[in-house]
Amino acid sequence: MPSEPEIALGRVTPALRHESLFSERAANIKQSAVRDVFDLSLDPSLVSLAGGNPYLQSLPLDKLGAMASELIIEHGMTALQYGGGQGTPELRAQICEVMAEEGILDADPANIVVTTGSQSAQDVACKVFCDPGDTILCEDPTYVGALNTFEAYQARVEPIPTDEHGMIPAELAKRIAELRAAGATIKLLYTIPNFNNPSGITLCAERRPQIMEICREANILVLEDNPYGMLRYTGDPILPLRADYPDDVIYMGSFSKILAPGLRIGWALVPEHLQRRFYLASEAVTLCPPTFNQMLISEYLKHHDWRGQIASYRDLYAGRCAGMLDSLAEFMPESVSWTRPEGGFFVWVTLPEGIDTYPLLAKAIDAGVVFIPGAAFSPADTPSNKLRLAFSAISADKIHEGVRRLAPVLREAIEAR
Amino acid sequence: MPSEPEIALGRVTPALRHESLFSERAANIKQSAVRDVFDLSLDPSLVSLAGGNPYLQSLPLDKLGAMASELIIEHGMTALQYGGGQGTPELRAQICEVMAEEGILDADPANIVVTTGSQSAQDVACKVFCDPGDTILCEDPTYVGALNTFEAYQARVEPIPTDEHGMIPAELAKRIAELRAAGATIKLLYTIPNFNNPSGITLCAERRPQIMEICREANILVLEDNPYGMLRYTGDPILPLRADYPDDVIYMGSFSKILAPGLRIGWALVPEHLQRRFYLASEAVTLCPPTFNQMLISEYLKHHDWRGQIASYRDLYAGRCAGMLDSLAEFMPESVSWTRPEGGFFVWVTLPEGIDTYPLLAKAIDAGVVFIPGAAFSPADTPSNKLRLAFSAISADKIHEGVRRLAPVLREAIEAR
Repeated sequence: MPSEPEIALGRVTPALRHESLFSERAANIKQSAVRDVFDLSLDPSLVSLAGGNPYLQSLPLDKLGAMASELIIEHGMTALQYGGGQGTPELRAQICEVMAEEGILDADPANIVVTTGSQSAQDVACKVFCDPGDTILCEDPTYVGALNTFEAYQARVEPIPTDEHGMIPAELAKRIAELRAAGATIKLLYTIPNFNNPSGITLCAERRPQIMEICREANILVLEDNPYGMLRYTGDPILPLRADYPDDVIYMGSFSKILAPGLRIGWALVPEHLQRRFYLASEAVTLCPPTFNQMLISEYLKHHDWRGQIASYRDLYAGRCAGMLDSLAEFMPESVSWTRPEGGFFVWVTLPEGIDTYPLLAKAIDAGVVFIPGAAFSPADTPSNKLRLAFSAISADKIHEGVRRLAPVLREAIEAR
Repeated sequence: MPSEPEIALGRVTPALRHESLFSERAANIKQSAVRDVFDLSLDPSLVSLAGGNPYLQSLPLDKLGAMASELIIEHGMTALQYGGGQGTPELRAQICEVMAEEGILDADPANIVVTTGSQSAQDVACKVFCDPGDTILCEDPTYVGALNTFEAYQARVEPIPTDEHGMIPAELAKRIAELRAAGATIKLLYTIPNFNNPSGITLCAERRPQIMEICREANILVLEDNPYGMLRYTGDPILPLRADYPDDVIYMGSFSKILAPGLRIGWALVPEHLQRRFYLASEAVTLCPPTFNQMLISEYLKHHDWRGQIASYRDLYAGRCAGMLDSLAEFMPESVSWTRPEGGFFVWVTLPEGIDTYPLLAKAIDAGVVFIPGAAFSPADTPSNKLRLAFSAISADKIHEGVRRLAPVLREAIEAR
């Protein structure tokens, strides 16, 4: 609180007056490094390997446009009106069909909550389960947006070591024991098991039940975030964690990567015994998800070959991923390594130890290319010798050019070490 | 935690196992009484005076349909893609024009954050300012959705007495002093100054600076929720609180009542010194508001006479309000009184003291009419002799029939007292 003399002098700015009003959690709410770079990536002179935007050009825009128009003209009274807080029954039933494609065969529409993108599902999960100081486990590295959401709830986020097969079960068990011994209250494990953002790594089939049994034994609920699951373009599909553990997993899906992120429609499939609280918490945030957007997606799923559309995305992203891997092989210095994703949008590049990729970003921008430094994907924001390259949004030619521009920046850093 | 013998007996249900995982706040997240009634009001044999849905029939649906179609076909790559977390620059500039109609002339698009309905703006405000146990002041009665949101943050909600001119400044000052003396940390005052939901009452011009000065003196930030402000159909317009107190008010607006709630687009105009934290907190919840919905509203504002559309809404609701007031005068027992709103969607009906309107709801439903009991609009859910009647969604004929059905239910309760 400002002192009396300050007030007398008229020196109290609104910012000073209101400083004491912020919640404790407000200090934890930070700018996402990805967002900073997102703005940059709009500069057309730069090749952006930063943003993980999906490729939308192949969508049936004429058809979608006609559906939107008909929805408003024929069903505007419903589409433009308030709807139920849980989402429309039709879309929830269709979401069950979408999840069946991934091997979740027992989902009940009653246990689905439609959300404003799956980001909002993460927010609601925190609201329902995390008190300040509670611990959430995640992969190291993990999705920067989830980190921002978790930190806004003053959760402690503890990264678990991963290798090329995903989170390491022994490391998970060890870390849980250590954290518990130190008095931590571990509530959730957040995982992107398929084609992780940012690493592109997939949790192998063998480890999935191991991870689940460790969490179940430790009474930790699993948040399975699977936006990229249907975008596998090589290797055998692996069942989601949710498939065999319906009581222990909140499964989060999204139409952002298989249809359109601009509609902001995601969902959570919640264990029946947790459904009510999850749904009410979601309602307390947004009242209801946008009716029109839900109905448009329902029309699309009903009247378009969405499976064929996803198959065409798979082919497209497979080509871009191959282009990325070939370009990396062509241009990268010998001491640089990278992941070989079987799906999704991202490759994770590792430089020799001791190099921090964050200061390299400015040099890369000078060279005409943008990436996301690895530090963004860890809770501590500690210096990292990794970086994320996205291949989803631009053509193989542009990817080639971007990697060509990036290589000398990395080479110089390695030589200067 | 379940005991070892329980585990040995295999008696541990998932619900039991996970009970310890809920956050403290989860227990505060309740079913909205309005929502229960909302489901009921879909029964076509009932006359619903419950739901405050806006009337959408007069919208230019053909035009909106054509705009939606063109947006997707011509600008789908932008409209269906991720956008900025703060909302599109175009819509934020247009929102300034909308607010100028209400007398806010100095709004800067940079200080606007577009949200998933204004409900989400309330959620973000709590996130940024309220720690568990902090106090939020509000009108008695107030919007049930805001109560649900505030309680999800474990805020203490303290209703301030109102009369026919809105919140009573002397009561506000007195309550602040009492609460402070009892050790409360008061962060926010939440108010719907125009045509309050549920009471229909408007805070008179004379009291507005008084309320603001009391809050400023006490260092309490004001959340001004003004979804109905442009729907004034009688009396002189009154400047929003925000107009003269730009540093001390977070102003919340919405397209739900002036265009379409199914698009879920609202906004907050945030004092410059609070903008960054508010925006980042909003981004942590939803990443970005739906791009397509924002662009559709921009097209509508650009190419349609939206002021004329609002004027026609005003005429329509004025007629329905008159129908409601006439019907009440015709049918209500003498000991019943009600408010005479100058705008908005609601009339607030007061029965003699000692009558609880909640048990009357079941009888009203038997008689073929639905209302919302007054208890829903107070934080304590204490028995109330009030009830809310909405006149926004149905014709004057139906309103007349609904009030005709309601009257004997109330009469019987009064006689049985």
